[in-house]
Amino acid sequence: MNQAIALDNHSACGSEPGLITVDEALQLILDRTQALTTECIGLDQALNRYLATPISSQINLPLFSQSAVDGYALCHEGEIEAGVHFELIGEIRAGQRSELVLQQGQAVRLFTGAKIPVHTTTVARQEIVQAIEHQNMIKITAALQPHADIRDVGEEVAVGQCLGQAGQQLSVGAIASLSMAGVQTVHVYALPKVAVVITGDEIADTMDELQSGKIFDANGPLIRAWFQQQHQQVYIFHVTDTEYAVSQLFHDLKDRYDVILTTGGVSVGDYDFVRPVALNIGFKEIFWKVKQKPGKPMFFAEYARKQHSPCYLLGLPGNPAAVYVGIQVYVNLLMKALQGQKSPCAWFSGIIQHELKSDQRERFLRMYAQFEQGQLYLNSLSKQQSHMLSNLMQANCLVRIPANQNIQKGAVLSGIFI
Amino acid sequence: MNQAIALDNHSACGSEPGLITVDEALQLILDRTQALTTECIGLDQALNRYLATPISSQINLPLFSQSAVDGYALCHEGEIEAGVHFELIGEIRAGQRSELVLQQGQAVRLFTGAKIPVHTTTVARQEIVQAIEHQNMIKITAALQPHADIRDVGEEVAVGQCLGQAGQQLSVGAIASLSMAGVQTVHVYALPKVAVVITGDEIADTMDELQSGKIFDANGPLIRAWFQQQHQQVYIFHVTDTEYAVSQLFHDLKDRYDVILTTGGVSVGDYDFVRPVALNIGFKEIFWKVKQKPGKPMFFAEYARKQHSPCYLLGLPGNPAAVYVGIQVYVNLLMKALQGQKSPCAWFSGIIQHELKSDQRERFLRMYAQFEQGQLYLNSLSKQQSHMLSNLMQANCLVRIPANQNIQKGAVLSGIFI
Repeated sequence: MNQAIALDNHSACGSEPGLITVDEALQLILDRTQALTTECIGLDQALNRYLATPISSQINLPLFSQSAVDGYALCHEGEIEAGVHFELIGEIRAGQRSELVLQQGQAVRLFTGAKIPVHTTTVARQEIVQAIEHQNMIKITAALQPHADIRDVGEEVAVGQCLGQAGQQLSVGAIASLSMAGVQTVHVYALPKVAVVITGDEIADTMDELQSGKIFDANGPLIRAWFQQQHQQVYIFHVTDTEYAVSQLFHDLKDRYDVILTTGGVSVGDYDFVRPVALNIGFKEIFWKVKQKPGKPMFFAEYARKQHSPCYLLGLPGNPAAVYVGIQVYVNLLMKALQGQKSPCAWFSGIIQHELKSDQRERFLRMYAQFEQGQLYLNSLSKQQSHMLSNLMQANCLVRIPANQNIQKGAVLSGIFI
Repeated sequence: MNQAIALDNHSACGSEPGLITVDEALQLILDRTQALTTECIGLDQALNRYLATPISSQINLPLFSQSAVDGYALCHEGEIEAGVHFELIGEIRAGQRSELVLQQGQAVRLFTGAKIPVHTTTVARQEIVQAIEHQNMIKITAALQPHADIRDVGEEVAVGQCLGQAGQQLSVGAIASLSMAGVQTVHVYALPKVAVVITGDEIADTMDELQSGKIFDANGPLIRAWFQQQHQQVYIFHVTDTEYAVSQLFHDLKDRYDVILTTGGVSVGDYDFVRPVALNIGFKEIFWKVKQKPGKPMFFAEYARKQHSPCYLLGLPGNPAAVYVGIQVYVNLLMKALQGQKSPCAWFSGIIQHELKSDQRERFLRMYAQFEQGQLYLNSLSKQQSHMLSNLMQANCLVRIPANQNIQKGAVLSGIFI
């Protein structure tokens, strides 16, 4: 089954035949990847991880009927009129066990979250209660309906109710919500082990080295920071532009990592060894070259491993803007797909504030987006070329400009916040 | 100067006098906090930190004039017509130093990012160049303008140009951009040292303890996860509901932490010791009680320290929904303010898809927002009460509902993504 070749036919991109579209490339990442193994971990370690199985609640929430306010549990049939007196027989604090049972005409002092005693008919918030001095009596100062300010057992969540679906990512709110239901461990997908390979002989480490035609590396720091933002560790390798060095490294990495992410060396230059070396080692091409700017020569391949999910190689071009798009869009999706989350990217839609000229490839432009009256307005920034990154100090989104269209002011475009 | 008392006069909140509005509370956090000290750290440690001083570029970007493509540097006056031949005199790779100097009619093989030789007039991409076999000659196969595919020195950034402003947060893109300019250390604000104090005797650690009226704690895990998301460490303390225990703990923490964040014990219940204890120790109240739901009894105070910035105490109510709003809105702003970023919260605006009844306090509702045709549509979720969190498994935003207004379908509301 040679799906890579089949792909060559299903898009004809004007003057650049053989390229697939951005949407086709993204879909191939979803379709051609297998989720990794799963593991059970403590909920306190699970921020941003993806559930491998649904979670059902073991308890009711609230766990017991309780007071919603600081006040008094009362026992009285029907509505209570202002002026009615009750005998005060005790106090229950939140977290306190109590065997108190109310009889008609009796009251118990309660605090928010405290379990209401047996035979409570309603709760009076303390603002409408007056203590009668030197007597164990209270007076209700405003009319009160039955069952006021009572949180009923199970009214939020019943035992057995589904709390989270497989594939769901555990946000801060999800962690809090599961904690409240007493969940202490979760079954999640393993985190992909990622090796990053920076190719190229042009990387300077110090100002002095700049004299010899070298440049500072943005790609390694960019990728490291992105994974750090995702709370995921990566291992960065630098490799010189020789076939031997690249080959030795890939040979070693393919067995130890789930993903090899490379920058540079994927075009058709004389020193572009990533693709030929990968194919030679036994990687199968899933796609090569996407009709996009920046990042056209992107390469995606898989290596089958015995008793293991495949190793995936995503080869990004070396231009920093291509690496930026690659990581925010493609690597992001790949990491999710390997963790069982197979839904497509969630693009926003926004309204462009100016014209954009047509280009034969789809473009990703760095923009500044702002909300106004419920609408999202997009403004492109200058310095969009693929060797430039300085506008990322201002940009807050990455916006897709469809190929072969003159974009008018007011057109709706899709993008992601960055 | 008793600003806390002055505040009591400047808002009269209908039936709940003395409360300040959400906007007033947020403004007080900005106005009444001092930024912490600053420090120099490695750029690789600086993700999400805030710049304390502007950064200027030490270098030009590009550092030297270079090829934008794999191709050939040519020396030729004016436009080059198809068919013109050039003598090939060498090759320059990216990162390679070269002393080559072109004469009229000569060419040098170049790769993307390679420094162009002296006297280069234009660059021909390899797609329009044909090698002449057995000769050191190439032929240009399409007309070519002067200065094609050359990236000029300093065209993106000039030496001395400002790269980032004081107060700017270092995103992934900012880290990449600064790396490319050779920045290796940055001057940033120190991270606030935060102690979290969970009050309340009702916290269960195991299923067995639930039998005695206790509940599982959502607040500790929520706060820990939020700070983890921000890549910030916090120290969590549990304290029993006695005046002595709270007092001892505050005494100890105020000297060692920049922020004490508490949950519970800030209302007017008989066991609400946070505010009286803090005031007794010497904290000065900045505000208490905000006209909001959830989270009305929120308390904010400062403790002056010798030769140190003050210690701030933010007391959140114990209801988990109030803690959630407190952390996403107020703690978020406080952390920024202490790191020199004094701009207000960046609220989105979105369009509500249904009616909402009026309430005398401003509400924060957990909602699900989605984009359509450049507009952001908001849908409220069920189970919004202050003791409920389970809808955070679905919510993606927190939306502000103004006080004392019936909200119509189609109204514009502000909020934050969560």
